[in-house]
This record gives sequence, structure tokens and C-alpha cells, in this order.
Amino acid sequence: VINVGDKHLRNIKAIVAYDGTDFSGWQIQTNHRTVQKEIQNALRKIHEREITVTASGRTDSGVHAKGQVINFFSDKDKINDEKFRDAINYFLPQDVTILKCTTVPDSFNARRSAKKRVYQYYIYTSAYPFPHYRKYCYFKRRQPDIRKLNELSHVIIGEHDFSVFAASGDTNKSKVRYVSSSHFYINGPFLIYRIEANGFLYRMVRSILGTILELEQQNRQGEDLKKILTSGSRDNAGQTVPARGLFLEKVYYQDNE
Amino acid sequence: VINVGDKHLRNIKAIVAYDGTDFSGWQIQTNHRTVQKEIQNALRKIHEREITVTASGRTDSGVHAKGQVINFFSDKDKINDEKFRDAINYFLPQDVTILKCTTVPDSFNARRSAKKRVYQYYIYTSAYPFPHYRKYCYFKRRQPDIRKLNELSHVIIGEHDFSVFAASGDTNKSKVRYVSSSHFYINGPFLIYRIEANGFLYRMVRSILGTILELEQQNRQGEDLKKILTSGSRDNAGQTVPARGLFLEKVYYQDNE
Repeated sequence: VINVGDKHLRNIKAIVAYDGTDFSGWQIQTNHRTVQKEIQNALRKIHEREITVTASGRTDSGVHAKGQVINFFSDKDKINDEKFRDAINYFLPQDVTILKCTTVPDSFNARRSAKKRVYQYYIYTSAYPFPHYRKYCYFKRRQPDIRKLNELSHVIIGEHDFSVFAASGDTNKSKVRYVSSSHFYINGPFLIYRIEANGFLYRMVRSILGTILELEQQNRQGEDLKKILTSGSRDNAGQTVPARGLFLEKVYYQDNE
Repeated sequence: VINVGDKHLRNIKAIVAYDGTDFSGWQIQTNHRTVQKEIQNALRKIHEREITVTASGRTDSGVHAKGQVINFFSDKDKINDEKFRDAINYFLPQDVTILKCTTVPDSFNARRSAKKRVYQYYIYTSAYPFPHYRKYCYFKRRQPDIRKLNELSHVIIGEHDFSVFAASGDTNKSKVRYVSSSHFYINGPFLIYRIEANGFLYRMVRSILGTILELEQQNRQGEDLKKILTSGSRDNAGQTVPARGLFLEKVYYQDNE
């Protein structure tokens, strides 16, 4: 049990959606508009003191979220979870919204307790880009071969050292991650790449996808992607795809969290 | 056949999509960013002279379009329709896109030849607004009763004098329009109002929908809407709903156009 003075602090888990377009990513940085800064500003107005929030993971500049998860400790014990959500939303700008608040055990930590993260990347293929989609997908004129894409994407599944697909800024000691799902599917006008893993390195999804798209275009095989993955050299990876197509969809915890 | 000097002018019909968020509507106005101005700017760059475009109808400030239709006359006879589309798009900003160009008979006029216009209005009902939808729908916390909405919306079908639902700026002489379809349906997370008519008065869709939503909330009957429609007084109509939920979906012409 965590206390401030005599007061028990309540651990609040919140699900957050944001439009990443006008944010320099999740994490607080001086002189940049970030999602964490906006949420902590809102919490400061409610608590009249600084509250630090923990997220399941950082998202990069321009990346969106439909299901980012955060937690923080609050001494406000008089309002229920729903009212808490509404109070935070009242102080948030329109491009960030708290979808849900839940009071959880003190042991819950949005980052350390996370079991699985799910990202989706939206590609729009057409003769022309569409104005209303322009901030939420990557436009490609050519329709790739989804069977070939899936053949390639399946190579990623399993436990691998993903150093090849980590951007230079990645600070994780271990580059080993377990990818439980990696596939492409169609939803309405979008070709979507969905990847699920216990964790991701810096820009890993965008680097994997950029590489898969290049290999598909060159009509190369799953074997070629395997070689790149095990080569140990980032020079062998393809170009990263733009941030605007990427959404943090969902984070999974233990059943009781 | 229309000529400039010795040259035959080609009549081009184009389908246009735009994100209305940052536009003061369709029609050219001094000191305002409008869709017509952007398109005419692009055409001026291609033709090195002023080209006036005709649209199926004006859309109001903030209203979107997926299928606005325009036409204009061009002396460029060397490039095919597809290249023409790409050339215009090259000079357009990201929030306007020409989806298709077709060379049509000289008699085609995007406004006068239009047989039917279709508008859709997107309502998002949830406990909280969603950041990525905020510019493209109207958020309502309460889920209205779709059966009641449809009972009300059907009253609008047929030929009526719609003076009651025309904003004060409307300059049409006759306020009589024929509404061929008016109904609500669900698509994914959206409640959509779809209305089809031979023409619309200024702000007519937003005024009809605002009135229907108010009557539904008050649990009033189709008879009450009939009374408002025939009352002749704009004071009886409800508040207009915001522009951001409204899309010009499609314009119908004769089969051969």
C-alpha cells in the first residue's frame, strides 16, 4: 500500500487514444508538445501537484494510439473511475482522450506488467491519396501482393534478436523480442499490417514493414528476409515507413488487470 | 462545339474529394481559403490563364466532400484524362484531390445537369469522443433511438417547400425540392443520416437533421415534424448540427454522363 502522509494512494490504470499528428511522441521533452505532457498537465490541474504517469511504452513522433495504457497514483478517493475519466478529459485537448479509468492493485505498472503489445499499420492503396485519410495511413499507388507480404511477414514470428530492425536511438540492452503474430489483412479500403509482441525496439515495426514492402516489390523470398534478420547489420534493413500509418492498438495484461 | 480562337475546347468533368476542415467552403471569396480557389489556382498553373470551374453545388464552410463534381473547359488536347487528373493533383494541396477526370460532351454542366445529390451526416455516439474522428463527425454522448429517428426522417421524403429548413442566406427563388430518400443507418461506430434529393437549400441538411435529433430527444412524433415542415416559419426548426459531420457523397447525372 502506497501512502502520501496519512493518505492511501489509489493506482489508476487508464486507456488513452491520441491523434499523433501534432505531437512529438509520447515522452516529455522540453519545448515539445508531447502526449505525456498534456496528460500530466491535466492531472496537475486536478491534483494541484505534479503527477508522473507511466505508459506501456513510448510512441514516436507522429505515431497514433487507440489503446495506449498508462497508470498513475492519485490521492483523490472521493470520485469514481468514470468521473475520474471525465475530469481528466475536461482538461485535455481534443487530440488526446482517456477512454477508460480503472482502479487497480498497487502492483500494476503499465510498462512492467504488460504481457503483449499490438501495433497496426494502415496502408491505403489507390490511384490517388484520399484527403480524409492523409494523416492516418501511408499511401501507395501500387497494390502489393498480399500473399507474398504474408509469406514474408511470417518469418518475423518467434523469438529473435531484432537488432537489425532497431533504429540507432534504441537504448534497450537486450534486442531479443518474442513476436507472437505478424500478418497482413484487408479492412475496407486499407491494407493493414498487424504485429503482436512482448515488446518492441525503437522504430522496430516501421523498419520491419519497410523491409517487407521492399522485398515484396523485388519479388524476393522469405529466405531473404531470414538472412537480413540474422545478418546483424542495420544496413540490410529497408527504409522505415512513415509514422502516420502506425497505431498502438492494444496492450494486454494479466486477466485480472 | 466551344472554341477559343481556332481551338476546340474540351469539357472535363472531374470528381473531387476534400477535407473541409481548413476551408471556408467551396466558393471563391476574397481573403478566404476555398476549394474552388485551390482548384482554379492549379488549373491556372497548367493553362497559364484563368479557368473557371462549375461545381454541382456549393458546400458550406467546414463541410467535406467525397464525390463533389465539377466541370471546366480546357484547350489542352494532348493529354489523356488520367494524366490530366495527375497534373491537377500535382498542383493541389493535400486536403483536395481529383479522383477522376472524364472528357464529356460540351452540353454537360456539373450544376445544371445534376439529377440527384446525396449527402451523408456522420454521428459518433459513445461515452467519449474519439481523437481520430473529431474532425469528421458530430459527437453525441446519448445513443438516439434509430427506429424513432427513421420514423421522423421518412416524413421528409417527397416534394415539399423546405423554406423552414433554409438558412437566412439562401438565395434560391423556389424552395421546393424533391427528396427521394431520407434515412438513418449504422456503419461501424457511426450512426449515419443519408439524404438524397434533386437539390438542397442553404444549410438544409444540417437544419433537417438538427430538428429530427431534437424531436427524437423529446420523444415527439412524425406528425410534429410534418407540422414544422408546413408551418412556414424557420423559428420552428431545430438548431443546425455542426458542419464537420457532413459529407457530399455523390452526384448523379444522366447515364451517359
